[in-house]
Amino acid sequence: MRNIKIEIQYDGTNFSGWQMQTNGRTVQEEIVKALYKLTHKQISLHGAGRTDAGVHAKGQVANFKIESSIPTSKIPSAINRFLPEDVSVFRAAEMPENFHARYSATGKKYSYLIYLDTYRNPLLRNYGYHIPYEINLGKMKAASKLLIGTHDFRGFMSSGSSIRDTVRRIDEIEFKKNEKNLWISFQGNGFLYNMVRIIVGTFLEIGRGRFDNVNIVKALETGQRQYLGPTAPPHGLYLDKVFYYLTH
Amino acid sequence: MRNIKIEIQYDGTNFSGWQMQTNGRTVQEEIVKALYKLTHKQISLHGAGRTDAGVHAKGQVANFKIESSIPTSKIPSAINRFLPEDVSVFRAAEMPENFHARYSATGKKYSYLIYLDTYRNPLLRNYGYHIPYEINLGKMKAASKLLIGTHDFRGFMSSGSSIRDTVRRIDEIEFKKNEKNLWISFQGNGFLYNMVRIIVGTFLEIGRGRFDNVNIVKALETGQRQYLGPTAPPHGLYLDKVFYYLTH
Repeated sequence: MRNIKIEIQYDGTNFSGWQMQTNGRTVQEEIVKALYKLTHKQISLHGAGRTDAGVHAKGQVANFKIESSIPTSKIPSAINRFLPEDVSVFRAAEMPENFHARYSATGKKYSYLIYLDTYRNPLLRNYGYHIPYEINLGKMKAASKLLIGTHDFRGFMSSGSSIRDTVRRIDEIEFKKNEKNLWISFQGNGFLYNMVRIIVGTFLEIGRGRFDNVNIVKALETGQRQYLGPTAPPHGLYLDKVFYYLTH
Repeated sequence: MRNIKIEIQYDGTNFSGWQMQTNGRTVQEEIVKALYKLTHKQISLHGAGRTDAGVHAKGQVANFKIESSIPTSKIPSAINRFLPEDVSVFRAAEMPENFHARYSATGKKYSYLIYLDTYRNPLLRNYGYHIPYEINLGKMKAASKLLIGTHDFRGFMSSGSSIRDTVRRIDEIEFKKNEKNLWISFQGNGFLYNMVRIIVGTFLEIGRGRFDNVNIVKALETGQRQYLGPTAPPHGLYLDKVFYYLTH
Protein backbone atom coordinates (compact mmCIF):
# COMPACT_ATOMS: atom_id res chain seq x y z
CA MET A 1 0.00 0.00 0.00
CA ARG A 2 1.21 3.52 -0.80
CA ASN A 3 0.75 6.23 1.82
CA ILE A 4 -0.24 9.48 0.10
CA LYS A 5 -0.13 12.93 1.66
CA ILE A 6 -2.28 15.57 0.01
CA GLU A 7 -2.51 19.32 0.59
CA ILE A 8 -5.93 20.84 0.26
CA GLN A 9 -7.48 24.28 -0.03
CA TYR A 10 -11.13 25.03 0.56
CA ASP A 11 -13.66 27.76 0.97
CA GLY A 12 -15.34 26.82 4.24
CA THR A 13 -18.45 28.93 3.61
CA ASN A 14 -20.71 26.13 2.44
CA PHE A 15 -19.17 23.35 4.53
CA SER A 16 -20.16 22.12 7.98
CA GLY A 17 -16.43 21.93 8.63
CA TRP A 18 -13.79 19.34 7.87
CA GLN A 19 -14.96 16.33 9.82
CA MET A 20 -17.43 13.82 8.44
CA GLN A 21 -20.77 13.88 10.26
CA THR A 22 -24.27 12.57 9.77
CA ASN A 23 -25.80 15.95 8.93
CA GLY A 24 -24.19 18.52 6.70
CA ARG A 25 -21.71 18.62 3.91
CA THR A 26 -18.08 18.27 4.99
CA VAL A 27 -14.70 18.57 3.27
CA GLN A 28 -13.56 15.15 4.44
CA GLU A 29 -16.66 13.54 3.00
CA GLU A 30 -16.24 15.26 -0.37
CA ILE A 31 -12.68 13.99 -0.65
CA VAL A 32 -13.62 10.46 0.45
CA LYS A 33 -16.37 10.50 -2.19
CA ALA A 34 -13.91 11.72 -4.83
CA LEU A 35 -11.44 8.96 -3.85
CA TYR A 36 -14.24 6.45 -4.19
CA LYS A 37 -15.08 7.67 -7.68
CA LEU A 38 -11.39 7.48 -8.58
CA THR A 39 -10.53 4.09 -7.08
CA HIS A 40 -13.92 2.41 -6.53
CA LYS A 41 -12.76 1.73 -2.98
CA GLN A 42 -13.88 3.14 0.35
CA ILE A 43 -10.69 4.86 1.56
CA SER A 44 -10.01 6.24 5.06
CA LEU A 45 -8.84 9.82 5.01
CA HIS A 46 -6.93 11.27 8.00
CA GLY A 47 -6.91 15.04 8.28
CA ALA A 48 -4.25 17.04 10.15
CA GLY A 49 -6.95 18.80 12.13
CA ARG A 50 -10.61 19.64 12.13
CA THR A 51 -11.81 23.00 10.98
CA ASP A 52 -15.22 24.34 11.96
CA ALA A 53 -18.03 25.39 9.65
CA GLY A 54 -17.06 28.58 7.84
CA VAL A 55 -13.31 28.20 8.47
CA HIS A 56 -11.18 28.18 5.32
CA ALA A 57 -8.00 26.33 4.44
CA LYS A 58 -5.08 27.28 2.23
CA GLY A 59 -3.03 24.30 3.35
CA GLN A 60 -4.96 21.56 5.12
CA VAL A 61 -3.16 18.21 5.00
CA ALA A 62 -4.55 14.69 4.90
CA ASN A 63 -3.25 11.21 4.13
CA PHE A 64 -4.72 7.99 2.83
CA LYS A 65 -3.52 4.60 1.64
CA ILE A 66 -4.05 3.27 -1.87
CA GLU A 67 -2.89 0.37 -3.98
CA SER A 68 -3.36 2.19 -7.28
CA SER A 69 -0.25 2.77 -9.39
CA ILE A 70 -1.28 6.29 -10.43
CA PRO A 71 1.81 8.55 -10.54
CA THR A 72 1.92 10.81 -7.47
CA SER A 73 2.19 13.92 -9.62
CA LYS A 74 -1.16 13.10 -11.27
CA ILE A 75 -3.03 12.67 -7.99
CA PRO A 76 -4.13 16.30 -7.47
CA SER A 77 -5.78 16.57 -10.91
CA ALA A 78 -7.24 13.09 -10.65
CA ILE A 79 -8.96 13.89 -7.34
CA ASN A 80 -9.93 17.44 -8.39
CA ARG A 81 -11.92 16.03 -11.32
CA PHE A 82 -14.36 14.63 -8.76
CA LEU A 83 -14.36 17.48 -6.27
CA PRO A 84 -16.85 20.35 -6.11
CA GLU A 85 -15.56 23.82 -6.88
CA ASP A 86 -15.12 24.92 -3.26
CA VAL A 87 -12.37 22.40 -2.50
CA SER A 88 -9.24 21.38 -4.37
CA VAL A 89 -6.04 19.40 -3.91
CA PHE A 90 -2.90 21.30 -4.87
CA ARG A 91 -0.07 18.93 -3.92
CA ALA A 92 0.53 15.24 -3.35
CA ALA A 93 3.52 13.28 -2.07
CA GLU A 94 4.24 9.66 -1.32
CA MET A 95 5.23 9.23 2.35
CA PRO A 96 6.75 6.54 4.56
CA GLU A 97 4.26 3.96 5.76
CA ASN A 98 4.05 5.43 9.27
CA PHE A 99 3.27 9.00 8.22
CA HIS A 100 -0.05 10.24 9.64
CA ALA A 101 -1.37 13.71 8.79
CA ARG A 102 -2.46 14.33 12.37
CA TYR A 103 -0.02 12.40 14.57
CA SER A 104 3.09 13.25 12.55
CA ALA A 105 2.36 16.99 12.53
CA THR A 106 4.87 19.13 14.44
CA GLY A 107 3.05 22.42 14.10
CA LYS A 108 0.45 24.54 12.37
CA LYS A 109 -0.02 28.00 11.04
CA TYR A 110 -3.34 29.81 11.07
CA SER A 111 -4.23 33.29 9.85
CA TYR A 112 -7.15 35.48 10.75
CA LEU A 113 -8.41 38.31 8.55
CA ILE A 114 -9.95 41.38 10.15
CA TYR A 115 -11.08 44.24 7.96
CA LEU A 116 -11.39 47.68 9.41
CA ASP A 117 -14.07 49.66 7.67
CA THR A 118 -17.03 51.85 8.53
CA TYR A 119 -19.43 49.73 6.49
CA ARG A 120 -19.53 46.00 5.85
CA ASN A 121 -17.82 44.85 2.66
CA PRO A 122 -19.95 42.42 0.61
CA LEU A 123 -16.85 40.97 -1.05
CA LEU A 124 -15.42 39.96 2.32
CA ARG A 125 -18.63 38.89 4.03
CA ASN A 126 -17.52 35.24 4.11
CA TYR A 127 -13.76 35.85 4.22
CA GLY A 128 -13.01 38.35 6.96
CA TYR A 129 -14.32 39.78 10.23
CA HIS A 130 -15.73 43.27 9.91
CA ILE A 131 -14.57 45.69 12.63
CA PRO A 132 -16.24 49.11 12.35
CA TYR A 133 -14.56 50.59 15.44
CA GLU A 134 -11.08 52.02 15.99
CA ILE A 135 -8.43 49.67 17.31
CA ASN A 136 -4.96 50.33 18.68
CA LEU A 137 -2.64 47.99 16.83
CA GLY A 138 0.31 48.75 19.10
CA LYS A 139 -1.59 47.52 22.15
CA MET A 140 -2.61 44.34 20.34
CA LYS A 141 0.98 43.64 19.30
CA ALA A 142 2.25 44.21 22.82
CA ALA A 143 -0.37 41.83 24.21
CA SER A 144 0.58 39.17 21.69
CA LYS A 145 4.09 38.95 23.18
CA LEU A 146 2.60 37.54 26.39
CA LEU A 147 1.39 34.47 24.53
CA ILE A 148 4.68 33.54 22.87
CA GLY A 149 6.28 30.44 24.34
CA THR A 150 4.98 27.37 26.11
CA HIS A 151 1.92 27.89 28.31
CA ASP A 152 -1.04 26.03 29.67
CA PHE A 153 -3.75 27.50 27.45
CA ARG A 154 -6.71 25.76 29.08
CA GLY A 155 -8.53 29.09 29.50
CA PHE A 156 -8.19 29.66 25.75
CA MET A 157 -10.47 26.83 24.75
CA SER A 158 -14.18 26.52 24.13
CA SER A 159 -15.98 24.29 26.58
CA GLY A 160 -17.03 20.92 25.24
CA SER A 161 -13.52 19.88 24.30
CA SER A 162 -12.45 16.65 25.98
CA ILE A 163 -8.74 17.29 25.54
CA ARG A 164 -6.57 16.78 28.65
CA ASP A 165 -3.17 18.14 27.77
CA THR A 166 -3.74 21.85 27.30
CA VAL A 167 -0.09 22.92 27.16
CA ARG A 168 0.86 24.39 23.80
CA ARG A 169 3.75 26.36 22.38
CA ILE A 170 3.18 29.48 20.27
CA ASP A 171 6.27 30.37 18.26
CA GLU A 172 5.13 33.46 16.45
CA ILE A 173 2.23 35.88 16.19
CA GLU A 174 2.54 38.26 13.29
CA PHE A 175 0.46 41.31 12.35
CA LYS A 176 0.32 42.48 8.74
CA LYS A 177 -1.72 45.53 7.87
CA ASN A 178 -2.48 46.44 4.27
CA GLU A 179 -4.86 49.36 3.93
CA LYS A 180 -8.07 48.21 5.62
CA ASN A 181 -7.04 44.58 5.99
CA LEU A 182 -5.33 43.27 9.10
CA TRP A 183 -3.98 39.73 8.96
CA ILE A 184 -2.93 38.15 12.25
CA SER A 185 -1.05 34.88 11.85
CA PHE A 186 -0.26 32.30 14.51
CA GLN A 187 2.40 29.64 14.35
CA GLY A 188 2.82 27.01 17.02
CA ASN A 189 3.05 23.32 17.81
CA GLY A 190 -0.72 23.03 18.08
CA PHE A 191 -3.87 24.92 18.97
CA LEU A 192 -6.76 24.01 21.25
CA TYR A 193 -10.38 24.08 20.12
CA ASN A 194 -11.24 27.69 19.13
CA MET A 195 -7.95 28.91 20.62
CA VAL A 196 -7.04 31.17 17.68
CA ARG A 197 -10.53 32.66 17.53
CA ILE A 198 -10.54 33.33 21.30
CA ILE A 199 -7.13 35.00 21.07
CA VAL A 200 -8.34 37.19 18.19
CA GLY A 201 -11.49 38.12 20.12
CA THR A 202 -9.30 39.04 23.09
CA PHE A 203 -6.87 41.09 20.98
CA LEU A 204 -9.81 43.08 19.66
CA GLU A 205 -11.05 43.85 23.18
CA ILE A 206 -7.52 45.03 24.02
CA GLY A 207 -7.30 46.99 20.75
CA ARG A 208 -10.48 48.91 21.55
CA GLY A 209 -9.46 49.56 25.14
CA ARG A 210 -11.96 47.41 27.01
CA PHE A 211 -9.32 44.89 28.14
CA ASP A 212 -5.63 45.17 28.77
CA ASN A 213 -2.64 42.86 29.19
CA VAL A 214 -3.80 41.88 32.66
CA ASN A 215 -6.62 39.91 31.07
CA ILE A 216 -4.15 37.68 29.26
CA VAL A 217 -1.89 37.34 32.30
CA LYS A 218 -4.84 36.31 34.48
CA ALA A 219 -6.21 33.87 31.91
CA LEU A 220 -2.81 32.20 31.65
CA GLU A 221 -2.43 32.12 35.46
CA THR A 222 -5.88 30.89 36.37
CA GLY A 223 -6.84 28.99 33.22
CA GLN A 224 -10.20 30.72 33.25
CA ARG A 225 -12.06 31.60 30.08
CA GLN A 226 -13.86 34.53 31.76
CA TYR A 227 -10.87 36.87 31.45
CA LEU A 228 -10.84 36.58 27.67
CA GLY A 229 -12.84 38.15 24.87
CA PRO A 230 -15.59 36.59 22.78
CA THR A 231 -14.69 33.93 20.23
CA ALA A 232 -14.16 35.72 16.90
CA PRO A 233 -16.36 34.34 14.10
CA PRO A 234 -15.16 31.39 12.00
CA HIS A 235 -15.25 33.04 8.58
CA GLY A 236 -12.12 35.13 9.25
CA LEU A 237 -10.00 32.05 10.02
CA TYR A 238 -7.69 30.22 7.59
CA LEU A 239 -5.63 27.07 8.19
CA ASP A 240 -2.51 28.08 6.27
CA LYS A 241 -0.04 25.27 6.74
CA VAL A 242 0.71 22.11 8.67
CA PHE A 243 4.32 21.40 9.53
CA TYR A 244 6.10 18.03 9.66
CA TYR A 245 9.65 16.89 10.27
CA LEU A 246 11.75 17.30 7.18
CA THR A 247 11.70 13.56 6.57
CA HIS A 248 7.95 13.92 6.17
CA MET B 1 -36.05 67.40 -3.94
CA ARG B 2 -32.54 66.42 -2.86
CA ASN B 3 -30.29 64.68 -5.38
CA ILE B 4 -28.29 61.99 -3.60
CA LYS B 5 -25.22 60.24 -4.98
CA ILE B 6 -24.35 56.91 -3.40
CA GLU B 7 -21.30 54.68 -3.80
CA ILE B 8 -21.92 50.98 -3.73
CA GLN B 9 -19.93 47.77 -3.41
CA TYR B 10 -21.24 44.35 -4.30
CA ASP B 11 -20.31 40.75 -4.82
CA GLY B 12 -21.69 40.04 -8.28
CA THR B 13 -21.70 36.25 -7.84
CA ASN B 14 -25.38 35.87 -7.04
CA PHE B 15 -26.66 38.79 -9.09
CA SER B 16 -27.91 38.82 -12.68
CA GLY B 17 -25.95 42.06 -13.00
CA TRP B 18 -26.76 45.65 -12.10
CA GLN B 19 -29.71 46.46 -14.31
CA MET B 20 -33.27 45.68 -13.29
CA GLN B 21 -34.88 42.98 -15.42
CA THR B 22 -37.93 40.76 -15.34
CA ASN B 23 -36.01 37.59 -14.46
CA GLY B 24 -33.21 37.39 -11.98
CA ARG B 25 -32.05 39.23 -8.96
CA THR B 26 -30.25 42.52 -9.71
CA VAL B 27 -28.33 45.07 -7.66
CA GLN B 28 -30.44 47.97 -8.89
CA GLU B 29 -33.61 46.20 -7.83
CA GLU B 30 -32.26 45.44 -4.35
CA ILE B 31 -31.40 49.09 -3.81
CA VAL B 32 -34.75 50.31 -5.17
CA LYS B 33 -36.47 47.87 -2.80
CA ALA B 34 -34.36 49.11 0.13
CA LEU B 35 -35.20 52.73 -0.76
CA TYR B 36 -38.86 51.78 -0.82
CA LYS B 37 -38.62 50.24 2.64
CA LEU B 38 -36.87 53.35 3.87
CA THR B 39 -39.07 56.02 2.29
CA HIS B 40 -42.25 54.14 1.33
CA LYS B 41 -41.86 55.67 -2.13
CA GLN B 42 -40.98 54.14 -5.47
CA ILE B 43 -37.70 55.89 -6.27
CA SER B 44 -35.86 55.89 -9.62
CA LEU B 45 -32.24 54.89 -9.29
CA HIS B 46 -29.71 55.82 -12.00
CA GLY B 47 -26.53 53.77 -12.09
CA ALA B 48 -23.25 54.98 -13.60
CA GLY B 49 -23.08 51.87 -15.72
CA ARG B 50 -24.37 48.36 -16.02
CA THR B 51 -22.34 45.44 -14.85
CA ASP B 52 -22.98 41.90 -16.07
CA ALA B 53 -23.87 38.86 -13.99
CA GLY B 54 -20.84 37.82 -11.93
CA VAL B 55 -19.06 41.18 -12.22
CA HIS B 56 -18.20 42.81 -8.88
CA ALA B 57 -18.09 46.45 -7.80
CA LYS B 58 -15.90 48.23 -5.29
CA GLY B 59 -17.17 51.65 -6.35
CA GLN B 60 -20.34 51.62 -8.44
CA VAL B 61 -22.17 54.98 -8.31
CA ALA B 62 -25.87 55.76 -8.53
CA ASN B 63 -28.11 58.73 -7.82
CA PHE B 64 -31.72 59.20 -6.82
CA LYS B 65 -34.00 62.02 -5.68
CA ILE B 66 -35.72 62.14 -2.31
CA GLU B 67 -37.69 64.59 -0.24
CA SER B 68 -36.74 63.03 3.08
CA SER B 69 -34.76 65.20 5.51
CA ILE B 70 -32.49 62.33 6.61
CA PRO B 71 -28.93 63.65 7.13
CA THR B 72 -26.72 62.65 4.20
CA SER B 73 -24.18 61.04 6.53
CA LYS B 74 -26.84 58.64 7.81
CA ILE B 75 -27.92 57.49 4.35
CA PRO B 76 -25.45 54.58 3.91
CA SER B 77 -26.45 52.90 7.18
CA ALA B 78 -30.12 53.62 6.60
CA ILE B 79 -30.07 51.90 3.19
CA ASN B 80 -27.76 49.09 4.33
CA ARG B 81 -30.28 48.07 6.98
CA PHE B 82 -32.55 46.94 4.14
CA LEU B 83 -29.94 45.49 1.80
CA PRO B 84 -28.90 41.82 1.55
CA GLU B 85 -25.37 40.95 2.62
CA ASP B 86 -23.88 40.88 -0.88
CA VAL B 87 -24.40 44.60 -1.51
CA SER B 88 -23.72 47.69 0.60
CA VAL B 89 -23.57 51.46 0.33
CA PHE B 90 -20.36 52.99 1.69
CA ARG B 91 -20.71 56.68 0.89
CA ALA B 92 -23.39 59.26 0.18
CA ALA B 93 -23.27 62.90 -0.90
CA GLU B 94 -25.84 65.53 -1.77
CA MET B 95 -25.31 66.79 -5.31
CA PRO B 96 -26.52 69.64 -7.52
CA GLU B 97 -29.90 69.05 -9.09
CA ASN B 98 -28.45 68.25 -12.52
CA PHE B 99 -26.02 65.56 -11.36
CA HIS B 100 -26.67 62.21 -13.03
CA ALA B 101 -24.55 59.15 -12.14
CA ARG B 102 -24.32 58.09 -15.76
CA TYR B 103 -24.38 61.29 -17.81
CA SER B 104 -22.16 63.30 -15.49
CA ALA B 105 -19.45 60.63 -15.35
CA THR B 106 -16.12 61.63 -16.89
CA GLY B 107 -14.40 58.28 -16.56
CA LYS B 108 -14.22 54.88 -14.98
CA LYS B 109 -11.72 52.51 -13.54
CA TYR B 110 -12.04 48.74 -13.79
CA SER B 111 -9.73 46.02 -12.48
CA TYR B 112 -9.41 42.43 -13.53
CA LEU B 113 -7.95 39.70 -11.31
CA ILE B 114 -6.09 36.81 -12.90
CA TYR B 115 -4.52 34.19 -10.69
CA LEU B 116 -1.68 32.10 -11.98
CA ASP B 117 -1.67 28.69 -10.40
CA THR B 118 -1.39 25.05 -11.43
CA TYR B 119 -4.65 24.12 -9.72
CA ARG B 120 -7.86 26.06 -9.29
CA ASN B 121 -8.18 27.96 -6.02
CA PRO B 122 -11.57 27.42 -4.31
CA LEU B 123 -11.24 30.72 -2.43
CA LEU B 124 -10.99 32.63 -5.70
CA ARG B 125 -13.47 30.64 -7.76
CA ASN B 126 -15.90 33.58 -7.93
CA TYR B 127 -13.33 36.38 -7.64
CA GLY B 128 -10.58 35.77 -10.18
CA TYR B 129 -9.79 34.05 -13.48
CA HIS B 130 -7.67 30.93 -13.11
CA ILE B 131 -4.79 30.71 -15.59
CA PRO B 132 -2.86 27.42 -15.29
CA TYR B 133 -0.42 28.16 -18.14
CA GLU B 134 2.72 30.30 -18.27
CA ILE B 135 2.33 33.88 -19.46
CA ASN B 136 4.91 36.47 -20.46
CA LEU B 137 4.04 39.60 -18.51
CA GLY B 138 6.50 41.74 -20.47
CA LYS B 139 4.71 41.00 -23.73
CA MET B 140 1.35 41.81 -22.18
CA LYS B 141 2.61 45.13 -20.84
CA ALA B 142 4.11 46.05 -24.21
CA ALA B 143 0.82 45.24 -25.95
CA SER B 144 -1.10 47.38 -23.48
CA LYS B 145 0.77 50.50 -24.65
CA LEU B 146 -0.91 50.20 -28.05
CA LEU B 147 -4.29 50.80 -26.47
CA ILE B 148 -3.43 53.96 -24.57
CA GLY B 149 -4.99 57.08 -26.03
CA THR B 150 -8.10 57.78 -28.08
CA HIS B 151 -9.12 55.05 -30.52
CA ASP B 152 -12.16 53.67 -32.24
CA PHE B 153 -12.62 50.48 -30.22
CA ARG B 154 -15.54 49.07 -32.22
CA GLY B 155 -13.71 45.74 -32.63
CA PHE B 156 -13.42 45.53 -28.83
CA MET B 157 -17.10 45.13 -28.21
CA SER B 158 -19.46 42.19 -27.95
CA SER B 159 -22.07 42.04 -30.67
CA GLY B 160 -25.55 42.96 -29.61
CA SER B 161 -24.59 46.42 -28.41
CA SER B 162 -26.53 49.18 -30.15
CA ILE B 163 -24.01 51.89 -29.32
CA ARG B 164 -22.97 54.13 -32.24
CA ASP B 165 -20.07 56.16 -30.98
CA THR B 166 -17.33 53.61 -30.37
CA VAL B 167 -14.47 56.05 -29.82
CA ARG B 168 -13.05 55.87 -26.31
CA ARG B 169 -9.95 57.13 -24.53
CA ILE B 170 -7.88 54.84 -22.33
CA ASP B 171 -5.63 56.81 -20.00
CA GLU B 172 -3.85 54.05 -18.14
CA ILE B 173 -3.45 50.30 -18.03
CA GLU B 174 -1.57 49.10 -15.00
CA PHE B 175 -0.26 45.63 -14.11
CA LYS B 176 0.31 44.69 -10.48
CA LYS B 177 1.65 41.27 -9.65
CA ASN B 178 1.67 39.94 -6.10
CA GLU B 179 2.78 36.33 -5.84
CA LYS B 180 0.21 34.38 -7.88
CA ASN B 181 -2.22 37.26 -8.33
CA LEU B 182 -2.09 39.57 -11.32
CA TRP B 183 -4.32 42.64 -11.24
CA ILE B 184 -4.76 44.54 -14.49
CA SER B 185 -6.48 47.89 -14.09
CA PHE B 186 -7.94 50.11 -16.78
CA GLN B 187 -8.73 53.78 -16.52
CA GLY B 188 -10.44 55.73 -19.27
CA ASN B 189 -13.31 57.98 -20.21
CA GLY B 190 -15.60 55.02 -20.84
CA PHE B 191 -15.63 51.41 -21.94
CA LEU B 192 -17.77 49.61 -24.52
CA TYR B 193 -19.79 46.50 -23.73
CA ASN B 194 -17.34 43.74 -22.65
CA MET B 195 -14.39 45.88 -23.75
CA VAL B 196 -12.28 45.24 -20.64
CA ARG B 197 -12.96 41.50 -20.74
CA ILE B 198 -12.07 41.32 -24.45
CA ILE B 199 -8.83 43.22 -23.82
CA VAL B 200 -7.93 40.87 -20.95
CA GLY B 201 -8.70 37.82 -23.12
CA THR B 202 -6.46 39.29 -25.82
CA PHE B 203 -3.62 40.09 -23.40
CA LEU B 204 -3.70 36.46 -22.26
CA GLU B 205 -3.39 35.20 -25.84
CA ILE B 206 -0.41 37.52 -26.27
CA GLY B 207 1.04 36.45 -22.92
CA ARG B 208 0.97 32.80 -23.91
CA GLY B 209 2.41 33.50 -27.35
CA ARG B 210 -0.56 32.67 -29.55
CA PHE B 211 -1.13 36.30 -30.55
CA ASP B 212 1.17 39.27 -30.81
CA ASN B 213 0.93 43.05 -31.07
CA VAL B 214 -0.19 42.79 -34.67
CA ASN B 215 -3.53 41.46 -33.46
CA ILE B 216 -4.20 44.65 -31.55
CA VAL B 217 -2.97 46.86 -34.36
CA LYS B 218 -5.24 45.08 -36.86
CA ALA B 219 -8.25 45.16 -34.56
CA LEU B 220 -7.81 48.92 -34.09
CA GLU B 221 -7.30 49.47 -37.83
CA THR B 222 -10.13 47.31 -39.13
CA GLY B 223 -12.53 47.40 -36.18
CA GLN B 224 -12.92 43.64 -36.44
CA ARG B 225 -13.51 41.45 -33.43
CA GLN B 226 -11.88 38.42 -35.12
CA TYR B 227 -8.33 39.61 -34.40
CA LEU B 228 -8.92 39.59 -30.66
CA GLY B 229 -8.97 36.93 -27.97
CA PRO B 230 -11.97 35.39 -26.24
CA THR B 231 -13.93 37.48 -23.75
CA ALA B 232 -12.45 36.77 -20.30
CA PRO B 233 -15.06 35.55 -17.79
CA PRO B 234 -17.06 38.08 -15.74
CA HIS B 235 -16.06 36.90 -12.27
CA GLY B 236 -12.55 38.40 -12.52
CA LEU B 237 -13.90 41.90 -13.25
CA TYR B 238 -14.39 44.71 -10.72
CA LEU B 239 -15.83 48.18 -11.26
CA ASP B 240 -13.45 50.14 -9.03
CA LYS B 241 -14.42 53.75 -9.40
CA VAL B 242 -16.45 56.24 -11.40
CA PHE B 243 -15.00 59.69 -11.95
CA TYR B 244 -16.81 63.03 -12.08
CA TYR B 245 -15.77 66.65 -12.39
CA LEU B 246 -14.59 68.06 -9.11
CA THR B 247 -17.80 70.02 -8.72
CA HIS B 248 -19.57 66.68 -8.65
